[in-house]
Amino acid sequence: MTLTPTFAIPPTFLGATLEPAAARFWVAGVPFDIGTTNRAGARAGPLAVRHASRMLVDGDNPANWRDPLTLGLADVGDFTLALGDISSSLALIEQQAAECSHLIALGGDHTITLALLRALAKRCGPLGMVHFDAHVDTWPDNFGQSFAHGSVFYHAINEGLVDSRRMIQIGIRSPVARAVYEWTLAQGVRIVSAEEVHTLGASAVADLVLATLGAGPAYLSFDIDAIDPGQAPGTGTPEVGGLFTWQAMAILKRLGGLDFKGMDLVEVAPAYDVAEITALAGASVVWQYLCLQH
Amino acid sequence: MTLTPTFAIPPTFLGATLEPAAARFWVAGVPFDIGTTNRAGARAGPLAVRHASRMLVDGDNPANWRDPLTLGLADVGDFTLALGDISSSLALIEQQAAECSHLIALGGDHTITLALLRALAKRCGPLGMVHFDAHVDTWPDNFGQSFAHGSVFYHAINEGLVDSRRMIQIGIRSPVARAVYEWTLAQGVRIVSAEEVHTLGASAVADLVLATLGAGPAYLSFDIDAIDPGQAPGTGTPEVGGLFTWQAMAILKRLGGLDFKGMDLVEVAPAYDVAEITALAGASVVWQYLCLQH
Amino acid sequence: MTLTPTFAIPPTFLGATLEPAAARFWVAGVPFDIGTTNRAGARAGPLAVRHASRMLVDGDNPANWRDPLTLGLADVGDFTLALGDISSSLALIEQQAAECSHLIALGGDHTITLALLRALAKRCGPLGMVHFDAHVDTWPDNFGQSFAHGSVFYHAINEGLVDSRRMIQIGIRSPVARAVYEWTLAQGVRIVSAEEVHTLGASAVADLVLATLGAGPAYLSFDIDAIDPGQAPGTGTPEVGGLFTWQAMAILKRLGGLDFKGMDLVEVAPAYDVAEITALAGASVVWQYLCLQH
Amino acid sequence: MTLTPTFAIPPTFLGATLEPAAARFWVAGVPFDIGTTNRAGARAGPLAVRHASRMLVDGDNPANWRDPLTLGLADVGDFTLALGDISSSLALIEQQAAECSHLIALGGDHTITLALLRALAKRCGPLGMVHFDAHVDTWPDNFGQSFAHGSVFYHAINEGLVDSRRMIQIGIRSPVARAVYEWTLAQGVRIVSAEEVHTLGASAVADLVLATLGAGPAYLSFDIDAIDPGQAPGTGTPEVGGLFTWQAMAILKRLGGLDFKGMDLVEVAPAYDVAEITALAGASVVWQYLCLQH
Amino acid sequence: MTLTPTFAIPPTFLGATLEPAAARFWVAGVPFDIGTTNRAGARAGPLAVRHASRMLVDGDNPANWRDPLTLGLADVGDFTLALGDISSSLALIEQQAAECSHLIALGGDHTITLALLRALAKRCGPLGMVHFDAHVDTWPDNFGQSFAHGSVFYHAINEGLVDSRRMIQIGIRSPVARAVYEWTLAQGVRIVSAEEVHTLGASAVADLVLATLGAGPAYLSFDIDAIDPGQAPGTGTPEVGGLFTWQAMAILKRLGGLDFKGMDLVEVAPAYDVAEITALAGASVVWQYLCLQH
Amino acid sequence: MTLTPTFAIPPTFLGATLEPAAARFWVAGVPFDIGTTNRAGARAGPLAVRHASRMLVDGDNPANWRDPLTLGLADVGDFTLALGDISSSLALIEQQAAECSHLIALGGDHTITLALLRALAKRCGPLGMVHFDAHVDTWPDNFGQSFAHGSVFYHAINEGLVDSRRMIQIGIRSPVARAVYEWTLAQGVRIVSAEEVHTLGASAVADLVLATLGAGPAYLSFDIDAIDPGQAPGTGTPEVGGLFTWQAMAILKRLGGLDFKGMDLVEVAPAYDVAEITALAGASVVWQYLCLQH
Repeated sequence: MTLTPTFAIPPTFLGATLEPAAARFWVAGVPFDIGTTNRAGARAGPLAVRHASRMLVDGDNPANWRDPLTLGLADVGDFTLALGDISSSLALIEQQAAECSHLIALGGDHTITLALLRALAKRCGPLGMVHFDAHVDTWPDNFGQSFAHGSVFYHAINEGLVDSRRMIQIGIRSPVARAVYEWTLAQGVRIVSAEEVHTLGASAVADLVLATLGAGPAYLSFDIDAIDPGQAPGTGTPEVGGLFTWQAMAILKRLGGLDFKGMDLVEVAPAYDVAEITALAGASVVWQYLCLQH
Repeated sequence: MTLTPTFAIPPTFLGATLEPAAARFWVAGVPFDIGTTNRAGARAGPLAVRHASRMLVDGDNPANWRDPLTLGLADVGDFTLALGDISSSLALIEQQAAECSHLIALGGDHTITLALLRALAKRCGPLGMVHFDAHVDTWPDNFGQSFAHGSVFYHAINEGLVDSRRMIQIGIRSPVARAVYEWTLAQGVRIVSAEEVHTLGASAVADLVLATLGAGPAYLSFDIDAIDPGQAPGTGTPEVGGLFTWQAMAILKRLGGLDFKGMDLVEVAPAYDVAEITALAGASVVWQYLCLQH
Repeated sequence: MTLTPTFAIPPTFLGATLEPAAARFWVAGVPFDIGTTNRAGARAGPLAVRHASRMLVDGDNPANWRDPLTLGLADVGDFTLALGDISSSLALIEQQAAECSHLIALGGDHTITLALLRALAKRCGPLGMVHFDAHVDTWPDNFGQSFAHGSVFYHAINEGLVDSRRMIQIGIRSPVARAVYEWTLAQGVRIVSAEEVHTLGASAVADLVLATLGAGPAYLSFDIDAIDPGQAPGTGTPEVGGLFTWQAMAILKRLGGLDFKGMDLVEVAPAYDVAEITALAGASVVWQYLCLQH
Repeated sequence: MTLTPTFAIPPTFLGATLEPAAARFWVAGVPFDIGTTNRAGARAGPLAVRHASRMLVDGDNPANWRDPLTLGLADVGDFTLALGDISSSLALIEQQAAECSHLIALGGDHTITLALLRALAKRCGPLGMVHFDAHVDTWPDNFGQSFAHGSVFYHAINEGLVDSRRMIQIGIRSPVARAVYEWTLAQGVRIVSAEEVHTLGASAVADLVLATLGAGPAYLSFDIDAIDPGQAPGTGTPEVGGLFTWQAMAILKRLGGLDFKGMDLVEVAPAYDVAEITALAGASVVWQYLCLQH
Repeated sequence: MTLTPTFAIPPTFLGATLEPAAARFWVAGVPFDIGTTNRAGARAGPLAVRHASRMLVDGDNPANWRDPLTLGLADVGDFTLALGDISSSLALIEQQAAECSHLIALGGDHTITLALLRALAKRCGPLGMVHFDAHVDTWPDNFGQSFAHGSVFYHAINEGLVDSRRMIQIGIRSPVARAVYEWTLAQGVRIVSAEEVHTLGASAVADLVLATLGAGPAYLSFDIDAIDPGQAPGTGTPEVGGLFTWQAMAILKRLGGLDFKGMDLVEVAPAYDVAEITALAGASVVWQYLCLQH
Repeated sequence: MTLTPTFAIPPTFLGATLEPAAARFWVAGVPFDIGTTNRAGARAGPLAVRHASRMLVDGDNPANWRDPLTLGLADVGDFTLALGDISSSLALIEQQAAECSHLIALGGDHTITLALLRALAKRCGPLGMVHFDAHVDTWPDNFGQSFAHGSVFYHAINEGLVDSRRMIQIGIRSPVARAVYEWTLAQGVRIVSAEEVHTLGASAVADLVLATLGAGPAYLSFDIDAIDPGQAPGTGTPEVGGLFTWQAMAILKRLGGLDFKGMDLVEVAPAYDVAEITALAGASVVWQYLCLQH
């Protein structure tokens, strides 16, 4: 029987208190956000997601009766960054990520995923990719900037970090240059629009994910703007018509068969959040991911 | 023709001005909230729900052309409480509830339901229960506290206030101890998860409710966190993946065949609300409930 | 390659910089809001919708690869109004609208639509009407006031500006006087409730729209309160159970076959918005409308 | 010993429950706001000020040990208005005000003061005026509209309702047409700028008020924008550099020697408020005014 | 040279990472808030104050070139509480406080101070008291409840924990029962109203504090509602006319001569805060207190 | 007589519509914010300040009866930037600033001032500096980054852009490294702390400014965090105890004797603002600056 009320647990993810050395899964914050192209502030995401995670501590996941805290979970704090410097920060993130075994990264903006994949692919080879997002993020540049939050998968594919034939994008709906979209399809990426999720149903989309990824190492990159702005206002580049959290959760809980090597949750920008609902959505995604592990 | 604009009606529920003695239905506020385990503030719920109800005054329910104001409705104000004292407050609430005929209680946190049921079951016997919530609320305790918002139906069932075989829970989705969940099922309670509502449809869920409750006295306990945080952020223990208001309303409007003896609307915490949307959702639920009466 | 980041474009709709004389489509703000009956503040809608539109600038609509900026779009600023005077303001709006060819009006409250239709029907004859709203807006008066935001289509139909047999209302769900509702049906208006949209699906509703309007001049009047308060809290008369933005967008994108002569987007009240999500929903509706043109 | 906690008292001003006929002082809401020239929403002021007043119920004023609830105070609800119609609303307000003996009006925008003074001056003759405001409100018109919130004292002086030689304005600081300002001085009005309050001190300003008003009937018109936006953000036309609440309260508490016949508190617009601080400032001003009475 | 940006430091007070055993000063959260009589939510105060403290990490106090992090500071997390139970929680708080040497407690509501003083007075004897507050907090009860946030100093004085002749209250201004106020004076307590602070100046008030406390053990109890609602909206019982933060800071920095044995900062309720300004005010008070130590 | 209500003027600064070529004073937005070290989002400052400036359009400055719109004012829009790249952005800003005659820059974070001064000093030689801020901004680096918002005057002095003996800093109060502070004094900079402004009075501070700057070219760099967080919450690095807006305005209006060559208003971050009060404070500072010109 727990005697510490929810509002008094330690301010780590799920209140985790395990020493890093004793853990199998490491949560780290990566408060980098100068790669954003619209509203700023994802640097405050890690703290907000950790704080919101307190609401998920008390009990098991009713889908499979797992409790992430029993898996061996440590929260190792935030990564060091180079203020105002994209390329130095990417190098620092890669270097720190390389020291973690199974890493759950809390962004920060989507730029960080490139550094995380560089570190992970060195160990695991090209990764299958489950990518939730409103945007394809395969632009070759971002208003003139090569490395920022809209070009992360352009680089990840070109650098061979991701096996684009084992990559699926879910929730896509933003305006996009036709050439960028068609390049993405040409790499073999499977794009599932938000409208398709609404009309196909979560279970069918989960089947698509499983079929696309198959066996082999997998990665989950979850941009919170995949979720509708009504349920996740706290982000920098919202787009109407998004996924509902129940759909995202219902898809994720069916992915237990994939061989996940890591994940990131990015683009939570708490300055635009209300009542922590975006942060809670992000924390719930991470919690659901952890419940897939065994 | 009404000449008073919406924003100038009296600050009672639906602007009701009937004297209590002349009414068939009584609305009362129960601003008790020290049984909450996460975010505080449901004490301010009654005022917020009353205020939001002004938006529903002007017209009939298009589902059945009823207008609650024609039913004989009085707003009797808020119940007296014992500050900072759970058991004394429960006794006071029970005593005041016992004096009301058909009571619609505006919480306050879910703890109040226990006192309300104690009063009502004395008059009506064990009640069938339509329980909207994100949480089963059948924990034997709450971080060491016996009587608080997470244990209300554990006690209500054990005290024989509720006929657990005529009880249905709708919208359940939070983390929960497996033993608590299984105890609930073992009592014969029908649990409909939020995901099931999303996939079965509102009409099918309404049928389940009608089949579970059957004839006999019935009660509606509506915890606003049954609704998704995107539509009801103003509450203390939000959970992603919740019901949509259209589903809750579509279920409720099909329950005219039940023999309702009372209801409560709990856990509206306006400090976390935006633009009164949570309070309006709560007021709409009460309004829909009233439109079932005749 | 655009080098101006999203947050630095001009504060016009979509950052449009074309001179009015060179444009085919004119966006104008109509910051009139003294016809509201509940929460005030739609006068600030035009600026908020323009500001939010910056999020839609970068790319084509993936539904048909059109980019509204290539159509010949000008933002002509806000219309002049008579402060605190409904009838003089309606006259001024009509007069200014008469000078625009294909006008996209950003309200302001729904009262403005009457003036816009008076101007347009003079040129095009009675219009077919696609009307998204939570309310029928066919009351003969508004708490004693003839011309305000709840009576606009009562007058528009009576003045012959709208062909009521070619009119469809989508998203209807508010309390309403039975007589008002039945008068509307008696005029031949097709009413699609919000619950019907949820159960029929967006594609079926789009078919209904096409079948109702048929050939002939058409108009889109989009009251943002058609959208659910969870996705569009920033409005004056919210009603629970509303449309989701994905449904509105999915319906609109299927209406390319209609002969639209103009549109308005009304009732965005930013004081109640959060993180610009209501304004973005409004801007997205206008953007989708523009993408139907060719 | 009061057993009802602050958050459970009736939603009237200070929780007053006296019948109007038994009272010496009447509080009424006047939710009129279509005379505003910038941000809308003062219609919601009365409810917000009443709600915030609960924080002042428990105890006496330490300045003179008076408790307004012992004076004979009734809250008579809101006045009826004509939606969207300035002149009809002014007539309705005047007519209802004429039926009240000592009236404390909660606006609504400043336009209402003209109607209140018309009613009162009929009974008391021209009134001495203590006018707190950021603006002189003596413009002959408001963007073309004669009767609105910026012209109220132009009309009140011209109609002989106010004795301009017994009028003082405190807190003035907005941009203003030179001719308007000089006309005001020419009527004999004493203008005390906000900067003068900051440098002279509250006590010296109180002396100026007493000297300017002298004997004879007096009136207090308190526009909440007299207070600085940091302490009163919830208003329509904020101006930086305003009075602090301690100064306003310190001035008011020294005015016990004036023969007040009534007061109004205007321009509280809760949509822009935070944590009820503007509404509380307004309620505190009214409470202080009541504590001057005996 | 620090390379970790402000937004990436650990989520402890000032980012402190020292082990408790190695520290001279201990910061602990005490998230108890069921003793509040108006707005709820001070349970979330500790986390908010810790988070806001990050803004104070980078540098020395320019008043005396001290940096609290060099003093030997540990953040020991939050105390355990008994949910919904005032007397058991007070016992738990006292017991945990007894294990700390020099404790800085982050509330929580003001009720906690009684338990903290019970623990401390056992070690140090009756304490001199510097009490910043809008309220005297010497009521014998709180709406019928003996032990809650308005009676803390009534009990502390009666229990002999505080030497009332060495006690000063600063910022007092709320409505109060005359008998309560006079009882306080009769105990020898020095009351400095907020208006007196505004007119006397911070330096003169600091002299009063030093003269009142003299030699002997001292304690600082800082209720954030001493500060004006414009600078500290995030609290439960705001009162207009409060102290400005510059005054509080200017008084505190002159108190280096007192022999402080501990302090608490209470009543920060983040749900009503804006942009963390209340939490920052609270964190700054604690930081200033620490800079007095040597 | 103006017929366009405040809420309908063009979205430029003060609604200016003059062509740049015809203007003497140019307002430009510089939405650069990746040099911030705490809360992000000053990129949205220019739009917010322009929007808030509408509240200042209607009338003359009562201090000297000037109206900035009569001076020849153009709003030239926002400068082009290099996304995510500090040094390229500084080069772009310098280059665009060089093309403006008398430039009023709306930031963006304080980093931009370095580029603005590089452009201006080329034309005017070393500038006297009136610097309002909570921070000295003379750090040699910012968490490892040379060019960011905390080092701008370190570089400006070292590059000879500012004549440090003709430089005054007003409002200083943050924690700071002793060496940084003493280096600043050693350059001859006059530092006036916020507490000194509170105790000396605005008029005395204005005299200090005039005495320090004397004759010769002058520049005003106004960091909005000079103002107290209660009046200017919308900024990235707030510090308690700040200036009040009345003080800043009272100082500025006495600086008509200086030979100003340009100004900037930086660090307005609207995501943390409430009711536009920070943006209005910023707009008012610029408006007051313009009223000094002739």
